[in-house]
Amino acid sequence: MDIAILSIGNEVVKGRTVNTNASEISKAMIENGHQVKYILTCMDEPTDICDSLKFLTERSDVIITSGGLGPTVDDLTIRAISECLNLKLVINSDAEKELRKRYNDLGLDFTEERKKMAYLPEGAEPIQNHYGTAPGIFLKHNGKLIFSTPGVPREMRGMLAQILKILGKGNLNYISRDMKVYGIMESTIAPLEREIMEKFQNKISVKSHPESMEFKDPVLTIEIYGYSKDNDLEREIEGAMEMVRQHVVQLGGRLEEKEKS
Amino acid sequence: MDIAILSIGNEVVKGRTVNTNASEISKAMIENGHQVKYILTCMDEPTDICDSLKFLTERSDVIITSGGLGPTVDDLTIRAISECLNLKLVINSDAEKELRKRYNDLGLDFTEERKKMAYLPEGAEPIQNHYGTAPGIFLKHNGKLIFSTPGVPREMRGMLAQILKILGKGNLNYISRDMKVYGIMESTIAPLEREIMEKFQNKISVKSHPESMEFKDPVLTIEIYGYSKDNDLEREIEGAMEMVRQHVVQLGGRLEEKEKS
Repeated sequence: MDIAILSIGNEVVKGRTVNTNASEISKAMIENGHQVKYILTCMDEPTDICDSLKFLTERSDVIITSGGLGPTVDDLTIRAISECLNLKLVINSDAEKELRKRYNDLGLDFTEERKKMAYLPEGAEPIQNHYGTAPGIFLKHNGKLIFSTPGVPREMRGMLAQILKILGKGNLNYISRDMKVYGIMESTIAPLEREIMEKFQNKISVKSHPESMEFKDPVLTIEIYGYSKDNDLEREIEGAMEMVRQHVVQLGGRLEEKEKS
Repeated sequence: MDIAILSIGNEVVKGRTVNTNASEISKAMIENGHQVKYILTCMDEPTDICDSLKFLTERSDVIITSGGLGPTVDDLTIRAISECLNLKLVINSDAEKELRKRYNDLGLDFTEERKKMAYLPEGAEPIQNHYGTAPGIFLKHNGKLIFSTPGVPREMRGMLAQILKILGKGNLNYISRDMKVYGIMESTIAPLEREIMEKFQNKISVKSHPESMEFKDPVLTIEIYGYSKDNDLEREIEGAMEMVRQHVVQLGGRLEEKEKS
């Protein structure tokens, strides 16, 4: 399934918070056989959240949001999603019971701000928050799956396993290998990259990540990777790596291969 | 001016690369009086780049892209932008001259892969790359400004100053202050946050960033910030901070204020 990630929060858009959540979610999805297509970050504004959600639902099967689930006034993800999809916001009795118990156990009132976290879009199921308070949501809507998780990394992480259980394993096998090349410019190795991608008919992608200047002691990490439904991928990636090895020797460069991860 | 950032690269979508570029660009823009609305990350796919560009140009005045400017086959940002906007891809004589000289000075041929980096969308100007090879682009199109920078952080950073020079100073004064609160739950401080935002008529935003669990030794960073065209902001933020100070004392919490940055 194609997945899109929607990160919601002024602090991410402003650059105050570097978006490690999106990277973590993406890695977890790919490791489980899915493909991620987009990561979109928007502010805590209902219109922006709705526009973003529409852009992503038109282009993927699953949307995973993070951020904006707490008790404060700027935590408006759930309300924005409900309004955007024309779903009523209704109290979820399981979520309410759980939240009420947690506050009452500490002798605390179940205030409006606390109760707010028990409201979900009609038809949504709560996802348990093992490391915080606000539950996440799981919603099926027009053939799409929408998951919402909190923005606090520990809380988001705690929900990822539950989301992966609902999604199940995808059918894509992802393999990626890195080769570090010293002494060859990116523009020099570019024709080889084209040759590999043509030979393997775009089943394999090759990307060079420059780690220094082109013109002075060039260092590149060559990443060879692919997604596949069959078992040929490992062999094809090894074939592509062999092409890189031969080429680097011919050009007088030096190679360092990382261990398989 | 409202700004949107478009990060282009499979490695960012896959979570291999955490998107620090977007955070850096955003911070630099805000420090210079602009506001950032969206950060969108897409793959090295012309259709996805075009869809993303359209989404962002409909919602902001300036789009800054990073990634996909190099000599390799997957570096297709410039071609994708040209096709998307129905602009011819033309060789820029300044860029070509500069690139040809740099390779010839090292006794290297000016190959097709190297020449590729001199092609810009019709009407675009090159932005000098002081820390790498591929020039950036600056393009005015239908009243929008589009800048493209490389994905290598050092090269992107080297172009930011040039972009800020073209954009000029924005008219928004951004002020942000952090207060660290110990021993008060986020759901307990939520009504105060609403009160502050109502009192300052949404000129000031308050966000609480939980740094621990709600139910056990809660720690919050309260962020008070705003964008303003007038000089009242500093005073209003101080007023909001005073409200937090009083509230925290009343509730028996403890406060740590960071120095102004």
